Amino acid sequence: MIVVFGTVALDTTRTPFKTAENILGGSATYCALSSKFFYRTSLISAVGNDFPKEFKKILQDRLDLTGLKTLDGKTFRYDSTFDYDLSKRIENSTELNVIEHFKPEVPEEYRDAEFVYLGNNDPSQNIEILKQFDGPKLTACDTIEFWIKNKKHDVMEMIKKVGCVILNDDEARMIVKEPALIKCGKKLLEIGPKVVIIKKGEHGSILFTEDVVFPIPGYPLEEILDPTGAGDSFAGGFIGHIARKGKLNLQTLKDAMIYGNVMGSFAVEDFGINRLLSLKPKDIENRFKDYKNILNF
Amino acid sequence: MIVVFGTVALDTTRTPFKTAENILGGSATYCALSSKFFYRTSLISAVGNDFPKEFKKILQDRLDLTGLKTLDGKTFRYDSTFDYDLSKRIENSTELNVIEHFKPEVPEEYRDAEFVYLGNNDPSQNIEILKQFDGPKLTACDTIEFWIKNKKHDVMEMIKKVGCVILNDDEARMIVKEPALIKCGKKLLEIGPKVVIIKKGEHGSILFTEDVVFPIPGYPLEEILDPTGAGDSFAGGFIGHIARKGKLNLQTLKDAMIYGNVMGSFAVEDFGINRLLSLKPKDIENRFKDYKNILNF
Repeated sequence: MIVVFGTVALDTTRTPFKTAENILGGSATYCALSSKFFYRTSLISAVGNDFPKEFKKILQDRLDLTGLKTLDGKTFRYDSTFDYDLSKRIENSTELNVIEHFKPEVPEEYRDAEFVYLGNNDPSQNIEILKQFDGPKLTACDTIEFWIKNKKHDVMEMIKKVGCVILNDDEARMIVKEPALIKCGKKLLEIGPKVVIIKKGEHGSILFTEDVVFPIPGYPLEEILDPTGAGDSFAGGFIGHIARKGKLNLQTLKDAMIYGNVMGSFAVEDFGINRLLSLKPKDIENRFKDYKNILNF
Repeated sequence: MIVVFGTVALDTTRTPFKTAENILGGSATYCALSSKFFYRTSLISAVGNDFPKEFKKILQDRLDLTGLKTLDGKTFRYDSTFDYDLSKRIENSTELNVIEHFKPEVPEEYRDAEFVYLGNNDPSQNIEILKQFDGPKLTACDTIEFWIKNKKHDVMEMIKKVGCVILNDDEARMIVKEPALIKCGKKLLEIGPKVVIIKKGEHGSILFTEDVVFPIPGYPLEEILDPTGAGDSFAGGFIGHIARKGKLNLQTLKDAMIYGNVMGSFAVEDFGINRLLSLKPKDIENRFKDYKNILNF
């Protein structure tokens, strides 16, 4: 089982082409809807009692929701606007709502999970949640600028405790205070994790382990409709492939990088989670082959 | 023979670590000092009578200088400052000097050159120069924001007339007015060239032909000292490898992309042209192998 701990949100996303209000989003949603193509996936999160039934059904049909609590109050909301070329996102508002006082717990039946992904939650919560598992094969985490600025100590503790960190380039630079990305990756490895991934949006991502630095370019997409969730979908594909292979050797990690990029590239082809919902396993394998073929020389 | 038409400059380069004044630079200098590792290279350019003898000797020892004129006046000068992480360059001053009224001509002995690279010169000059060759196997050009803003018509004419354009991402977007890079590349192909390369700095580059989109990530460098000349060194390596192979098939183009990135990665490892001067052919082949190995999965 893969357990994903993160937000389930109602997103309002504004792009130059379209605005969509209160659509299903959140880091856990994207990651889990991506990883479930590879391996059984379970959620730990909380929504309010305003959470639409149809969204609940979308999740229910695809994931184990034992760990999804419905609390009195409103669901976490995030409102943002992308600029003309979809390269920058401006936050308009964040309403924590039920997330603010949520005390996450790992359900009994999740405790022996082999794979755990900790979204960009409060790092002290991530550390707490980690303790409740009985030794997963791989734990991975993400974080965001807000926590690096306000809870740096906890961020560092969290990175020490996981097997894998998956970060954006800016966050990586901010944590180790080093502009050169290759050095960033190596410094992050020194903190403790065996695997570090630095994501660079449309420019792809770089895998770091003790033995290799493996950069891959982004999948060449002609059209991007909504970049929301690309990073979490990447994480889902990455962990998902490792989970179904059940091993952490170099070839599996490299292929997992490709699957991560494949899932991120699908996520941005349509608004919100739409493409993740319409996707067939065959589409994923075809794009994986196409990607390998493109990169091959 | 490869003929490179562009600037030979005295650069003043300021980085957070070091400032170097009046060092040998210019688009033609970087491109030619890179391509000469692969194939005999000749220059078309002009310097003033203040051009230091030791710089002349550096060029003389490595290149055919029949097309390098020494004119009354001062050499072209370019002064710029890089920001803390070397990702942005601010122009402090540009003195055209002898370049301003230079009327470039192709020497008789260059006219049957098989390969021609036109740097970021005035596009109408590039078009004029092109006419003076007897049908090269491959012609390639670069351009910059200044010409796209001020001489768009000539830029388009130039792109129509060459076999290959090599541009930065921002310039590509500006020319075809399209934010998505993959579409940019395809739209540039529609203008006429058989080969389009979009450079993305540390994120690598993308090759476009009628048949393929081939993205490659940047070579993972730990330390960058001075990004000056990376793009022109890329162009030198790219054209140089095609020239020594003497063909334009897909495998040669793909390998040329790697050699381009290899030469760009060497150029930025030291200040100005220093690394291009200390480089041995074996270093290039070793990094090419290392690069292929890194990208391999």
